[in-house]
Amino acid sequence: MIRTFVFAAVVLVAMGATSAAQDRPVLRRHNLMPVPKSVAFRDGRFAVRETFAVAVTKTSDPRLLAGIDRMLRSLERRTGFTFPRGLAKDASAAALVIECDGPGLPVPSVDENETYTLTIGPAQAVLKAATTVGALRGFETLRQLLDGDRQGYFLPAVAIDDAPRFPWRGLLIDVCRHWIPLDAIKRNLDGMAAVKLNVLHLHLTEDQGFRVESRKFPKLHQLGSDGHFFTQEQIRDIVAYAADRGIRVVPEFDMPGHVTSWLVGHPELAAGPGPYEIVREWGVFDAAFDPTREPVYRFLDAFYGEMASLFPDAYMHIGGDENNGKQWKANADIQAFMAKNKLADAHALQAYFNARLSKILKKYGKRMVGWDEILHPELPKDSVVQSWRGQESLAESARRGYSGILSSPYYIDLSYRTTDHYLADPLPPTVTLSPEEAKRVLGGEATMWAEWVTPDTIDSRIWPRMAAIAERFWSPASIRDVPDMYRRLAAVSVQLEDVGLRHESAAGLILRRMAGSRSIAQLSLLAAAVEPVKGYRRGRLKPATQFAPLTSLVDASRPDSLVALMLRFGIDELVGDAPRFRARKGELTAAFEEFRNIRPAIDRIIDESPMLQEAAPLAADLASLGSLGLEALSYLASGEAAPAEWRDAALAKLMQAAEPRAAVELAVALPMRKLIVAAAEQLQLSELGLKAWLTRVETLAVPSPPAKK
Amino acid sequence: MIRTFVFAAVVLVAMGATSAAQDRPVLRRHNLMPVPKSVAFRDGRFAVRETFAVAVTKTSDPRLLAGIDRMLRSLERRTGFTFPRGLAKDASAAALVIECDGPGLPVPSVDENETYTLTIGPAQAVLKAATTVGALRGFETLRQLLDGDRQGYFLPAVAIDDAPRFPWRGLLIDVCRHWIPLDAIKRNLDGMAAVKLNVLHLHLTEDQGFRVESRKFPKLHQLGSDGHFFTQEQIRDIVAYAADRGIRVVPEFDMPGHVTSWLVGHPELAAGPGPYEIVREWGVFDAAFDPTREPVYRFLDAFYGEMASLFPDAYMHIGGDENNGKQWKANADIQAFMAKNKLADAHALQAYFNARLSKILKKYGKRMVGWDEILHPELPKDSVVQSWRGQESLAESARRGYSGILSSPYYIDLSYRTTDHYLADPLPPTVTLSPEEAKRVLGGEATMWAEWVTPDTIDSRIWPRMAAIAERFWSPASIRDVPDMYRRLAAVSVQLEDVGLRHESAAGLILRRMAGSRSIAQLSLLAAAVEPVKGYRRGRLKPATQFAPLTSLVDASRPDSLVALMLRFGIDELVGDAPRFRARKGELTAAFEEFRNIRPAIDRIIDESPMLQEAAPLAADLASLGSLGLEALSYLASGEAAPAEWRDAALAKLMQAAEPRAAVELAVALPMRKLIVAAAEQLQLSELGLKAWLTRVETLAVPSPPAKK
Repeated sequence: MIRTFVFAAVVLVAMGATSAAQDRPVLRRHNLMPVPKSVAFRDGRFAVRETFAVAVTKTSDPRLLAGIDRMLRSLERRTGFTFPRGLAKDASAAALVIECDGPGLPVPSVDENETYTLTIGPAQAVLKAATTVGALRGFETLRQLLDGDRQGYFLPAVAIDDAPRFPWRGLLIDVCRHWIPLDAIKRNLDGMAAVKLNVLHLHLTEDQGFRVESRKFPKLHQLGSDGHFFTQEQIRDIVAYAADRGIRVVPEFDMPGHVTSWLVGHPELAAGPGPYEIVREWGVFDAAFDPTREPVYRFLDAFYGEMASLFPDAYMHIGGDENNGKQWKANADIQAFMAKNKLADAHALQAYFNARLSKILKKYGKRMVGWDEILHPELPKDSVVQSWRGQESLAESARRGYSGILSSPYYIDLSYRTTDHYLADPLPPTVTLSPEEAKRVLGGEATMWAEWVTPDTIDSRIWPRMAAIAERFWSPASIRDVPDMYRRLAAVSVQLEDVGLRHESAAGLILRRMAGSRSIAQLSLLAAAVEPVKGYRRGRLKPATQFAPLTSLVDASRPDSLVALMLRFGIDELVGDAPRFRARKGELTAAFEEFRNIRPAIDRIIDESPMLQEAAPLAADLASLGSLGLEALSYLASGEAAPAEWRDAALAKLMQAAEPRAAVELAVALPMRKLIVAAAEQLQLSELGLKAWLTRVETLAVPSPPAKK
Repeated sequence: MIRTFVFAAVVLVAMGATSAAQDRPVLRRHNLMPVPKSVAFRDGRFAVRETFAVAVTKTSDPRLLAGIDRMLRSLERRTGFTFPRGLAKDASAAALVIECDGPGLPVPSVDENETYTLTIGPAQAVLKAATTVGALRGFETLRQLLDGDRQGYFLPAVAIDDAPRFPWRGLLIDVCRHWIPLDAIKRNLDGMAAVKLNVLHLHLTEDQGFRVESRKFPKLHQLGSDGHFFTQEQIRDIVAYAADRGIRVVPEFDMPGHVTSWLVGHPELAAGPGPYEIVREWGVFDAAFDPTREPVYRFLDAFYGEMASLFPDAYMHIGGDENNGKQWKANADIQAFMAKNKLADAHALQAYFNARLSKILKKYGKRMVGWDEILHPELPKDSVVQSWRGQESLAESARRGYSGILSSPYYIDLSYRTTDHYLADPLPPTVTLSPEEAKRVLGGEATMWAEWVTPDTIDSRIWPRMAAIAERFWSPASIRDVPDMYRRLAAVSVQLEDVGLRHESAAGLILRRMAGSRSIAQLSLLAAAVEPVKGYRRGRLKPATQFAPLTSLVDASRPDSLVALMLRFGIDELVGDAPRFRARKGELTAAFEEFRNIRPAIDRIIDESPMLQEAAPLAADLASLGSLGLEALSYLASGEAAPAEWRDAALAKLMQAAEPRAAVELAVALPMRKLIVAAAEQLQLSELGLKAWLTRVETLAVPSPPAKK
């Protein structure tokens, strides 16, 4: 395993070596993510020493000072230095000078000016920003620029002029299906700040849980949450913590569907007969509010009034998705109301409901946000549409005059690869919009729905992929170099641990729990070689309720397996290039040997950990793949073409090994296909000969567009 | 590294194989820690399945139900099962029946009845306890009994009758020198509960920080804490969280010395002239209260009154240690007071001060606890002495009629090996006490002083060693089998992660921060092969203030290196036993090869991480040790004795490599000495021939008794 991981690291470090942008004054590989709008490296460096001091000229405010403190403490952790305490009095002698024009808007806003410039020379670094928020963004860039070599720590000489491409760059966290407590939210806010995200969308109510304290209607959280909810004090804490990092908090109260947990305490809001219990399964359920009765609006008016004072953001999300209309259809009073008011169908009735909600929100100074389904000719024009249906749907709402945010290609709960999200653009070339229409696309939000995560694993589902999505939202559209993205992502991922995220350490905890005092070396290799099944397959392959512990192999595995990535890029690079092949053969051999040698040690752990019995066939297959890989390398080294029967049997084995089991896919199987074919054709890769086979395997490998939950 | 760690795990699993207690009806190795008073395994097992249900007969209370819930959730995490929710109605069909006589004392007390019996048969497990606290202790035993094999998960058939040897089994956490926040305290409380500890001693005030909110004297925490203190609400949270786990919280307010942080806001309490600032260095400082002025006592009366209502425990700790008397000597008024009151010296004046404090505490219903220095003929007899001076000092106070708790051999902040703590007994055979006197020794407390820890690393300094100390406090004195202790400790350590502790994951975070996107495989091996220097050497070798980040190699290393342990036990087992040597040679060879091969990969990381430059000589030495080990194995395999010059050069290399650098010791060096000598003497180990050399190395290896801080 050591060698496999060492090789993976070597490949990562080497990746993108040939693909750096050519238009920079000094060609220099950097670890910046998101890539700034404009970055020009120069010769030279600023040496970071124990004397590193910061001066603030122009304005200063508590938020700026707190941001400086976080930055300095992080630089200290990474350098081991103890910097002087307090700000430097003499700006000319300071290592870093911060010139900030003002504190920015009193409440974080979509209109905030986040631009900054950062100029680093041999004598000093200067950061200029119009607002404190812009300065905070610049601090993150500076943290990513820190580098070290035999001469010591340094910041490279550079001139950066930066501004975001989109003003709405968000992450949705569903805290309902599984409860995600305060500390997990806070560390994810720190992660978001590190990659310049600026919206935390809290999905606070669902069929499976009502997660915020309501003092006006305490039965909501008392009966709808199993005791797992944010107190109002905690909400204020989250909002303040986010604001301190230039991040808005947009709350979502999903309605008229997805409301079962409300109805446990308040069945009088329902369109159907009660009683109701918190839902423990996953899916779309029938429970819905009754949009025809005035007491429901009085309730919602009071509720939104309470929440409006708790959440200062100008936007409030009313959900609006996946109301199946069954309870409405079954309710004679509702049907009579619809007939009387000429509401043709459920969609029209929901539009009526939304119009009423919009008025309530307006009263409290809020703009309404909702999912695609709220689109309707009656929808007030100041509403914002969040799209799970995709770019074209979002473009259509922009054409109709609505602002929008894109979520469809960023469903990170579905375990797709980073690339799939990274290359999806909120404004793809295929979508034609006028400049004015295009401006209505405010940005995007990745969604972390919580059917399959716990506080222990959620970081490993969000990070590091979220950093690549953050780049899509911030950086110029032209930044699309995938190998270079992966290389930078590996560096950023480690820095994200420094702010408290646990995406790298989560797997070890799960695997050690299974292995007891035995070494987890082989088990770690297996977990790193598999990926969670993609899309909505997990629920079908391994059904579970809200109560399931989520501590099995799939929970220790991660999307976008690093080992598979290494094979994909490593083999792509080697196949057809004899000198490189010879240079890298030893490393690949070592990796395949470790695949092969995963047994018998892993079998002993499986024998003692019954919950791992589902992993036994995967371990056996990984060992077989190791043997196949070694055979392929041996053919390639010998110069003798592998027989067609060997090739066909090997490809069949890859296919079989790639089939999902235990809610995971052996992600290293398919990347080996080129190696197998290369062994049979002696480095003369013929895509033609592979075509039929590739068509079949690509259907396994390529994600289908995410369906909404 | 994989092989080294695999070998370490193999050695651990094998350890104690020959040393299991012989007096058990069914000889069975178990992972119980602390070992129960009486445990009798039987043939058979209870199969743990998805249907596992719990019934409560007799009394029940919220604390019992919460304890059951924690136990069941843990069993779910480890088995992957989803158990039925709610208690079983029919006790006869339940998997586990709990018979609890009553809830126990309303406030956790040193007089709590913690006994329980646990009987597991093929059809059912039955846990009986006099109190909820006894039942909680039994739940932890049950969690440790869970086992698995090809037939599935099970609890072995067993009859356990358990009771603690000492009623006071504590851990002191210093939250002052470095701030240790709420979540770290809570996860450590969970760890304490897992090994049946029952006292959290919170060291809340120090020269370097005042860590509790005082509403009566808010300048104390406002000016003395840098903003890092427990609010009163958080204190209540800690006390309730601890009580829920049957753990008392004893607060310490250290005085009359160690009080600088108080004096920042209240210089009028001081014996010397102000002004004062929070101390950032480590050591003993001059600042002291003025024990001659009545306003000081009025202040302390009000302060202790406030704290007495916050901390419900019957005991309150006044520190009393290391007051150097300098400020008293320099103050003419104090000297006059002493002369007038016939107080001969500082010790007498402090005794006067303590007597006054004791009266104040008594007024608030508290018994006074203090460190050895409070011992004085005037000390009220209901005071409790906590000894940092050792067993003989504690015995002396017991003879004088005082209750006491032992801390001296349990200074876990000093990085000694688990064995050193484990074998130290609060009532060693060398100390002669009457039964009545012996009863005054209430137990012990390990101390986690916080000069060299942060919230990120504190768990790795406390755990897993604390579990072995917990066994010393709970289990019969006869339980002293070191190899078996280490074997069980490795299993318990993993289970401690399950409650949220981060002792296993902390190093990875530090090392990845240094290595960036490079693999940490070799760096992990280096960190695992070294140990923090022992005793108070770190401050001398690598001085630092409270502001230092503590993120260097030493902070990623851990006391009692597992790799060194493996070499110690592995080599001990192999040397002089030819068949075993042949069986294990391959594993040892692999480990030494990995030592040798740590370069050049680690050099690349060191080149890019200047804070690791201090590790370069250690990496070079580890590589050399690997080569030496391989040479020794080669001599042993050949049957040809190594030349004396080789032996002497090799031993000299071990000596040099064992010298502390970068605040660590290369812990694998000295355990190799037997292998080197064996190679030179062809398995004929002559202790005599080694004697002179061993005398020298043992002085390096054997800890000196801890001096108090």
